[in-house]
Amino acid sequence: MTIAENKGRRRTRRGGSTPAPARDINYRSLRNPFPPARVFTDDRIAAIHEAALSVLEDLGLKVLLPEARTLFARAGARVDDSTEMVRIGREIIDAALVTAPKSVTVRGGARPRDVLLEQGSLVFQPGAGAPHATDLVRGRRPGRGQDFAELVKLTQYFDVLHMMPPLVEPQDVPMHLRHYMTMETMMAQSDKVPFIFARGTPQTEQSFEMLQDFRGLSDEEFRAESHSYTIINTNSPRQIDIPMARGLIDFARAGQISIVTPFTLMGAMAPVTVAGAMTLSHAEALAAIALTQLVRPGAPVCYGTFTSNVDMKSGAPAFGTPEHFTASVVAGQLAGRTGLPWRCATGSAANLSDVQAAQETQFGLWGCLLSGATVVLHAAGWLEGGLTVSYEKLITDVEVLQMVAELCAGTSAEDADIALDALAEVQPGGHFFGAQHTMERYQTAFYEPLIGDLSNYGTWSERGAVDTTTRASDLWQKILNEAPGPRVDPEALARLQEYVAVKSQAGGAPPES
Amino acid sequence: MTIAENKGRRRTRRGGSTPAPARDINYRSLRNPFPPARVFTDDRIAAIHEAALSVLEDLGLKVLLPEARTLFARAGARVDDSTEMVRIGREIIDAALVTAPKSVTVRGGARPRDVLLEQGSLVFQPGAGAPHATDLVRGRRPGRGQDFAELVKLTQYFDVLHMMPPLVEPQDVPMHLRHYMTMETMMAQSDKVPFIFARGTPQTEQSFEMLQDFRGLSDEEFRAESHSYTIINTNSPRQIDIPMARGLIDFARAGQISIVTPFTLMGAMAPVTVAGAMTLSHAEALAAIALTQLVRPGAPVCYGTFTSNVDMKSGAPAFGTPEHFTASVVAGQLAGRTGLPWRCATGSAANLSDVQAAQETQFGLWGCLLSGATVVLHAAGWLEGGLTVSYEKLITDVEVLQMVAELCAGTSAEDADIALDALAEVQPGGHFFGAQHTMERYQTAFYEPLIGDLSNYGTWSERGAVDTTTRASDLWQKILNEAPGPRVDPEALARLQEYVAVKSQAGGAPPES
Repeated sequence: MTIAENKGRRRTRRGGSTPAPARDINYRSLRNPFPPARVFTDDRIAAIHEAALSVLEDLGLKVLLPEARTLFARAGARVDDSTEMVRIGREIIDAALVTAPKSVTVRGGARPRDVLLEQGSLVFQPGAGAPHATDLVRGRRPGRGQDFAELVKLTQYFDVLHMMPPLVEPQDVPMHLRHYMTMETMMAQSDKVPFIFARGTPQTEQSFEMLQDFRGLSDEEFRAESHSYTIINTNSPRQIDIPMARGLIDFARAGQISIVTPFTLMGAMAPVTVAGAMTLSHAEALAAIALTQLVRPGAPVCYGTFTSNVDMKSGAPAFGTPEHFTASVVAGQLAGRTGLPWRCATGSAANLSDVQAAQETQFGLWGCLLSGATVVLHAAGWLEGGLTVSYEKLITDVEVLQMVAELCAGTSAEDADIALDALAEVQPGGHFFGAQHTMERYQTAFYEPLIGDLSNYGTWSERGAVDTTTRASDLWQKILNEAPGPRVDPEALARLQEYVAVKSQAGGAPPES
Repeated sequence: MTIAENKGRRRTRRGGSTPAPARDINYRSLRNPFPPARVFTDDRIAAIHEAALSVLEDLGLKVLLPEARTLFARAGARVDDSTEMVRIGREIIDAALVTAPKSVTVRGGARPRDVLLEQGSLVFQPGAGAPHATDLVRGRRPGRGQDFAELVKLTQYFDVLHMMPPLVEPQDVPMHLRHYMTMETMMAQSDKVPFIFARGTPQTEQSFEMLQDFRGLSDEEFRAESHSYTIINTNSPRQIDIPMARGLIDFARAGQISIVTPFTLMGAMAPVTVAGAMTLSHAEALAAIALTQLVRPGAPVCYGTFTSNVDMKSGAPAFGTPEHFTASVVAGQLAGRTGLPWRCATGSAANLSDVQAAQETQFGLWGCLLSGATVVLHAAGWLEGGLTVSYEKLITDVEVLQMVAELCAGTSAEDADIALDALAEVQPGGHFFGAQHTMERYQTAFYEPLIGDLSNYGTWSERGAVDTTTRASDLWQKILNEAPGPRVDPEALARLQEYVAVKSQAGGAPPES
C-alpha cells in the first residue's frame, strides 16, 4: 500500500469564515505505510523457522506449570514430568497457526478506542513495567501509585498512544492489593484498552470481574471479545514459568489476548548472533502461541519478540542499536510466516532523557516501522533499558509518534495540489505567502509540533532559551492540571470501588508464582 | 537488494590470540539497503513530471546570465532577452536526461576516499554553509577560519562522512581571499572530496587550479573526472541567478559535478502543498541539469531537492517534519524517473543540540533513507535551519549515521549463526555468556557506540551523570587534539601555499554576482 492510498483519512475542512479550520488527522487508527525491510533472504528465514521447529521438537522447553504440560501432552507432545521438559512436534505448531485468529479487535471503553490487531495495523504503547519513575520536578524515585495514576492520565491524553500499558510498578501499593489500584485507576482515568498482569489466577480473575462489570458486559459478551490484554514473557532460554503459563491459559480461556514476547538479549539469554537469537525467540513464541490454542482453538494471541543485544564489555542491555533494529526486521520476516498480529519494541539504555535517549528510541522505532510491527511497545518515555519511565521523554517521544501518524495519514496529489495555477500566479523570484492557493490551505497544511520550537534563535533566546526537555516538563504538568478524563459511568465506578473495598477487606489476592 | 546481500562487506577477524580482534566495518562505501517508500502512485508522479514540463515550456524560468540564455536559445528554447525568460521544450529536457551520466565517480585524495554517485549509493555530508558555529566551550559565534579548519578536521576523522562540504562560512576571511583559505585548509587537513563554491569564474577557476596542481593532475586528467563538487541552488520560484548559472557552466566545462538543488519551502518560495512544491522543484532541477548538458553533453550532474515547509504561524523554516519527509519521498519517486544520482537533506530548526534537534534530524534522515537518496546533506551538526553548525551535534549525529552504516553492512544468517549447537548447549534458564559460540564472536559481534553510554544508572551516576552532549564536547576536543590528519605531499602543499601567497598579493579574486 502506498501512503497516498490512506489519504482518505486526512480531512481538511474548508470554507466558512469562523472558526479557524483545525487540522483533523486521525491518530487513533493507523495503518503502516512503509514498505517492509528485509535482512535475510526468504530461504534463510525458512532455515530459521525450521531451526526453531527443531529446537521445539528435539531440544524442547522446560514448562514449569503441570497443567500446561498436561495440555501439551494431550496434544501429542513428548513430556517428561521429572525434568519438566516438553518436546513439541511441528504438527502442534502448524495446527496452532491455523486456528489462531489473524485479526483481533480489542475493545476499549468507547468504540473510537477499539484497537485492531492485525498485520498492517500500527499501534503504539508508551513504556511499560518500569520500577522507577522520573521527571525534572521530582527526580527519580521508585514507582508509586501516584506516578501510575499520572502516567495513565498522560497516556490517556494522547490519541497516538493506543493501549494502556503497566507504565510503572506502584511499589507503595502492597502486591496483594495492587491489581485493585491499577484497575480502578485505569477504569476511572482512561477508556483505552487496559493491561492486566498475569500474576496468578486469583488476581487475573478478579481483574476480569472488575473490567467486565465496569464495562457492563455479560459473561458471554466478555469472553466473545478481548477487552484487555497481557504480556507473556518467556524465561529465555527455553523456559515458561508458572505465572506465564498460567496467564496464557487463563487469558485464552477468557478470550482475552496474550501478547507473547520472548525477551532475549543477544549474548546473554540468547545466542550472540541475530540469527541465533531470533531462532530462539521464534521457537519460544511459537510454543506459547501453541499453548493458547490447546486451551481454546481460536483464542486471540499476538506473536512477538523483544530482542536486542548486550554491551559485551559490561553485560549491560543495549537498545535502539543496529543489532536491535536488525532483529526487529528479522522478527517481521518471521512474523510474516505466521500471519498473526505481532509486537515489537523500541527502547533506550540512556540514563536520562537526552540526545542519546532520543536517538536510540527513534532508531529502534524505525526498526519496528520497517519490520511491519503491529504493536510497538515502549514507544514513549522508556529509559534505562526499562528501569525508568520519564515524564518528559513520554512527551518528546509522542512528538515523533505523531509525526509518524502524520505520514500514515498520507498526502494528496490531485491536480489542485500540483497547483499549476499558483505556479503561474507567482512570478520568478516572488513568494507564495499571499497566493490564493496558499491562503486556502495554510491553516491546516502542516503538522503543528507538540513540543518542537520552530522560532528563530533571537526569538527563542528572548523567550529564555528553553530546551526541549524543560518545555516537555511544562507540558505534562499542564496536561495533568487541565486535561479532562474520559466520560465515566459514576454508578459503574461506585460498584468498582465497592468491589475493591470488599475484596481488600477480605485480604486481597496475592500474586502466584 | 536485501541487507544480507551486502554482508560480504562485513569482515570479522577470527582466531589469533593477540591482539584482540577489532570490528572492521566498511563505513566508506555504503549501499542503501532500505526499500524505497512511495507517497504518490506512479500515475500521480507522472502527472507531476508532466506538470513540471509544462512549467518549463509554458511559464518558463528567468535566467539572469546572458550566456546561459544563449545556450538555451541555441538548443531551441524560446528566449526573451528583455524579460530574461526562457521557455524550455521537453525535447531539451529529454535529451539532457539521455546524456547526463547515471553513475559518477568523484575522486578523493586517496582511492578509498573516492565517492561513487549513482542511485543505490549512500553518501553522507555534515551540515554545510552555516554562517555561525557553536559549541559548549566557546558558545555561538559568527563562523571563523578557525571554525572552518576545526570542522574540516572533525569531518575528516569520521569515515561515515564521505564528502567535505563548506561547513561554516569563515567570515573573518575577506571574500576575495576566502577560497584560498578554504582550499588550502581542505587540501592540508583532508583527503575527502572537496566542495568549491560557485561564486564566479575567477574564484572557480583558481580553485580548480589549486586542486589540480595539488593532486598532480594534467589538464586532461582533471577534466576527465570529477575531483570536486559544487551545490547549485536555484532561486525559487523559477529563477536561476548569475553565479548559479555561471557555476553550472564552469563546472560542466571542467568536468566537475554540480549538485543541483532547488531549495523550496512549502508556503514560502513554493506552493503550500507537497505536490505543488515538488512540481516546482522538479522543474527547476530539470532546467539546471539541461543547462549542464547544453554546455557539455555527458557532463556530470546530480539531481536534487531540498524541500521542507514553513511554520505558517511565524513563517519560520521547519525541518525534519512530516511534510519534509513526504517531500523527500516524492523527490525519490521523481528522481527514479531521471535515473540520475540525486541528493536530499535532513535538518533541524532547533536552536540548540537537544532532544528536538536529535529527533528532527533523525526523522529527516529516515525520509532520505526511505527515498533512496544518493547524497544526504546536512546529516550531522546542522542547527537553526542551517544558520549554525554545532560541534557537539556533529558528533552525536555521526552516531546515528554509523548505526545506519552498520545496517548497510548487513548481517549473516549462515547455519553457524543460527547456532543450533549453542542452543543445545545452554540449558533452560541458563545463559549464553560463556558459550563457545559467544566466546568466539563477542568481541566483534556488536556495534560499539561512539558516544552512547550503555552503563547502568548507578555506574553512570558515580561517573558524574554526564549527559550525551557534554560527552560529545569532550570527544570533539579529543579528536582535534589527537587525531592525525591525512598524509599530505609536503611539496604539493608548499606549491599551494606559494600560489595562495602570490595570488593574494595580486589582489585575490572577488566573488561575482
